[in-house]
Order: sequence, then structure tokens, then C-alpha cells
Amino acid sequence: MKIYIAGSGAMGCRFGYQLQQAGQDVTLLDEWQAHIDAIKANGLQIEGDHPDCVRIPIMRPNDAQEAADLIIVFTKAMQLEGMLAQIQQLIQEHTMVLCLLNGLGHQEVLERFIPRANILMGVTVWTAGLKGPGVVHLISTGAINLQAIDPSGEQKGKAVCDVLNLAHLNATYDTDVIHSIWRKACVNGTMNATCALLDGTIAQVFASPTGMEVVKTILHEFVLVAATQHVILEEAQMLEYILHVAHDAGDHYPSMHQDLMQQHRLTEIDYINGAIARMGAQAHIPTPYCTMITQLIHAKEYMFAHLNA
Amino acid sequence: MKIYIAGSGAMGCRFGYQLQQAGQDVTLLDEWQAHIDAIKANGLQIEGDHPDCVRIPIMRPNDAQEAADLIIVFTKAMQLEGMLAQIQQLIQEHTMVLCLLNGLGHQEVLERFIPRANILMGVTVWTAGLKGPGVVHLISTGAINLQAIDPSGEQKGKAVCDVLNLAHLNATYDTDVIHSIWRKACVNGTMNATCALLDGTIAQVFASPTGMEVVKTILHEFVLVAATQHVILEEAQMLEYILHVAHDAGDHYPSMHQDLMQQHRLTEIDYINGAIARMGAQAHIPTPYCTMITQLIHAKEYMFAHLNA
Repeated sequence: MKIYIAGSGAMGCRFGYQLQQAGQDVTLLDEWQAHIDAIKANGLQIEGDHPDCVRIPIMRPNDAQEAADLIIVFTKAMQLEGMLAQIQQLIQEHTMVLCLLNGLGHQEVLERFIPRANILMGVTVWTAGLKGPGVVHLISTGAINLQAIDPSGEQKGKAVCDVLNLAHLNATYDTDVIHSIWRKACVNGTMNATCALLDGTIAQVFASPTGMEVVKTILHEFVLVAATQHVILEEAQMLEYILHVAHDAGDHYPSMHQDLMQQHRLTEIDYINGAIARMGAQAHIPTPYCTMITQLIHAKEYMFAHLNA
Repeated sequence: MKIYIAGSGAMGCRFGYQLQQAGQDVTLLDEWQAHIDAIKANGLQIEGDHPDCVRIPIMRPNDAQEAADLIIVFTKAMQLEGMLAQIQQLIQEHTMVLCLLNGLGHQEVLERFIPRANILMGVTVWTAGLKGPGVVHLISTGAINLQAIDPSGEQKGKAVCDVLNLAHLNATYDTDVIHSIWRKACVNGTMNATCALLDGTIAQVFASPTGMEVVKTILHEFVLVAATQHVILEEAQMLEYILHVAHDAGDHYPSMHQDLMQQHRLTEIDYINGAIARMGAQAHIPTPYCTMITQLIHAKEYMFAHLNA
């Protein structure tokens, strides 16, 4: 099966590596020239639980030509549209596209480039770290939930699950993946921006009584806006789930903290709290906490960009 | 005239020093033992524009006994009530009490301890810095606006202005001091918490487009809540004033940034944005931006308190 990984950062490399090990014909696509050069020169270096070094094709999206059977998109949220625009030549009538990006609003972007019947949406709890160009750090295990957004895609979606499972990626065909995506968005929406802004671990932010008030109010806005999208989130149950994740991952800084406070990069806030603010505005539902925290994160991005300038 | 400075940090020391130099009988009151000990041992050291060292009485509030003609309160906002409870023995029928604290809600606290006719409210743009126990840094000049909260206090209020002016403190008897207090609260409410939370100067926060959105929305909440207190703030004019202050003081970190981010101390947020949140709730006016930023500042206070523990 011809598989492209569109966006080959840490997670893309993990998936590409495991799929190639399972015998698939995998090509990594990425824009980062130093990463491309390192993998071409030295192979993809795997550190962590099972150190390895493998040859794997990698190129810029524009340079890929062979038609795809499966494309797994793993860009940063804000790069998804640009990536899809660059890989139109790979997409045939039968090409399935699987999106496992965090956040909300990606389906609408995909639908502008890919027929509905070929779109698979999902969430994953696999993790991966990028140590530098060509070097990834892979530990622990994970799982994937995915589903075709159109009922006509179900058989193909299940076939993709089989391909992923041959690579030990633990994929399950979900019956309500949109709910799973919103559930993960609630986790990210309550932890990422708060920890980035307050410069703390999940445990530190959640230990503070007023930090928890902010968390609960953000969750409330997610629940109200989800209902306008025909997604019913049971608020008490969702809070319990968030607290469970916060308990297990308390010592961690969420990825947005890493992006913003450690790397001074742009964040994915527009696809998490910012998406709630946009959908809320369209549905005339006030979402002041999601709106304000989006504005504050963008203000901090702006400050770092201009400090470094 | 027997004058007590109730709360003798940097600003209290400036006022006490200038009033004593003008011939008044001044006693400083404070709770910080190292500060008391240093001033008793070495006098009050003045650095800055006009270096000096003077003997000036200082003691704990409980230890003061002689009846006061004038008490100027200069505590931190959250210490006002405790200070007033400790200096009841100084307050006679004729004792005037002048409050120049930043923020909102102090008048209600004063009214629980002092007859309305004896309360003077005010604002000041004098500044002062504390370099350490017994050492203050005084530069530049300033001014005071004050007014009796009850019309019956007008003559006494004007007499207090005269006393302050003999000490070159540039006091004006205001005809609408509550408006002046709210105007200063708008400045503090838009700059202090935002700069503390985003860890930036006023210019850095105000340069960011979404930072300005936060500023404007906070101001809007101040204007709405002021109206419930019969204070009419003209929003466009107030924004212009805030931008003018931001332009002149752009390179500064507001005092809340110093308290929170530099010293890891509790802030006065409950008397600025937090006061708007409380008054808004009482009047059923939503104030989500003031409420959320108060919660975020308290969360950061909590995190610092527990990091240092």
C-alpha cells in the first residue's frame, strides 16, 4: 500500500516508521530541509524504548508524484491547509486521508480538498518527541480511534484500521469519533492554554482553586458550543475525565507550553479555544473565557515574536 | 498637627518625610519590624533627587496612643481593614482620615471604622520606591486630588489640602474625586493584571493587537459597572487617557508585575479587576474578562506560594 505521511514531525515519523516496519511502502513528506537532509544522509534515527536506524524515503510535498492509497496528515494545525494544497497530485478517487490532528475545525478544511467519502477523522494517544533533524524519541504505547465521516467510507475505514494494526498502532474503528475528538479537545482546551499562560505544569495549575474555576468555565463553554454542532458532552462526566488525565499527566507541561514558553513559537490556540470562540460567535453563544484566553495567548506569541526580532 | 502615616512603605515614608520637613508632628506606623528597627537605629534614609537622612518616630500601630488630627492610610489594599482595626484608639471626633490607596472598594471599608464626615478620599500620582528596611528612593514630583465623601467634610478637607501643600505635596480639593478614583482604577485595571500575567512592559502588552482587545474589553466592563455605582465614564475618552498613560509609561512594569512576577507576593487584584467582578455580580452585569483575569492572577499567586513552600 502506498502511504504518505503528510507532515513528518515526531508523530509522523513514528507512524511512518511503524508502517514501513510492517511492510508498507511509506514516504515521509515535510518542509523542514534540515530534517529531510538528515534523514537522506543518515536515515531516520529512533531513540527510546527500541533504538533503531532505518532508511525511509522523505521529500518535500511538491516533489511527490506517485498516487497515494492512504495519506496520514500530521502537520501542525495551521499548516494543514497549505499541505493539502501541495499534495493534490497524490490524491486519486480511491485515496483515503486520515487526520489525527489535535483540535477542532480540521474536517471543514479537509472537505475543501478531499471527497467526504474518503475522509477519516480520528484521535490518538500515541506520543513522540523530536530530538533534532532526523532523530525521534519514541517511548511507551498508544492507540487510535478513527471513523469515516461519511457512512459510505466505513469499509475503507475499517481496512485502514487493519493496515494500522499490522503496524501495532492499535487502531479501533469508532462509532462516534466526533465525540472522541471533542473529548480530547476539552482536555486540550482546559490544560494547554492555562498551563502556557500561567507557565506551570498541569498539576500546578489544577491545584489552584481559581485555576480550577477557569478550567470549569472553559469546559462549560466547550459543552455549550458542542451542542450547537450536535455533539452532546455530559459536563460532569467530561470534568471527571479531564481530572483523570490531569492526575495521570500532572507533572507534564502540555505541548502548547512547550511551543509558546519554551520555543517561543506560534501555538495551535486557534484550533482549540479559538475554534470554540469562532463557533460560539456564529451560534450567538457567549464564550468569553475561550475568547480571552485565545487573545492572551496570541498577545504572548506577539510579544515573543517581537522580542526575538 | 498630629499626623499618623498608617502604613509606612515607600509612599508612606515620602508623605511622612515631606510633612515632617514642613513642621508637622508626624509618626509612622508599620508592621514590618526590620523597617521599624532600621529607622529607629539609623533614621529614615532618603535616596534619589534630594538625598537626606532624618530622625522620624516609627512604631507598630498597636503601640501608638496620642490622638490623631490626621491619619493618612497607605497600607496595601488588603491590609487596610486590619490597620483600621488596630488604630481605633487614635481616632477622635475631629480626626480626619485620608485614603490615597489605589483601587476600588476602600470607602466601604473606611465607613465601617470612621464617621463619613471625617473621610477624605483621593488619588495621587506621586511615586516612591523602597530600597530596603529604612531606605526609600524618591524622584520626580506628583500631585494629589482629594475630596470629603460627605459635603459636611468640605472645610476640613480643604484644611487638609493646605497642610499637604505646605509640604509641597500639590494637593487640590476635587469636586468629583470618585470619578478620578475610577479613572485611575481603569488605568490600573487595564495595565496591571495584563502586564503581570503576560510578563511584559506596558508597551509590549499594548503593542499586541489581541492584547489591546483584552484592554478594551476590560475597560468596557469597568464602564458598565461604574454606571451601576452612579459614576459615568465616557468610554472613548477613558481609552484615550489610558493610551496616553501607556505611551508615557510604556517602558515600565506596573506594580502588580513587581509584586507578582518579581517578588512572588500577593497582589491587589481583588481591589481592581476583582472589585469590578464583585460589583458586576451584585448588579447582574456580566464581567467575564475581569473575573477571569482575577482568577488567573490568583492562580499564579497560588503557584508561586506553593513553589516557594
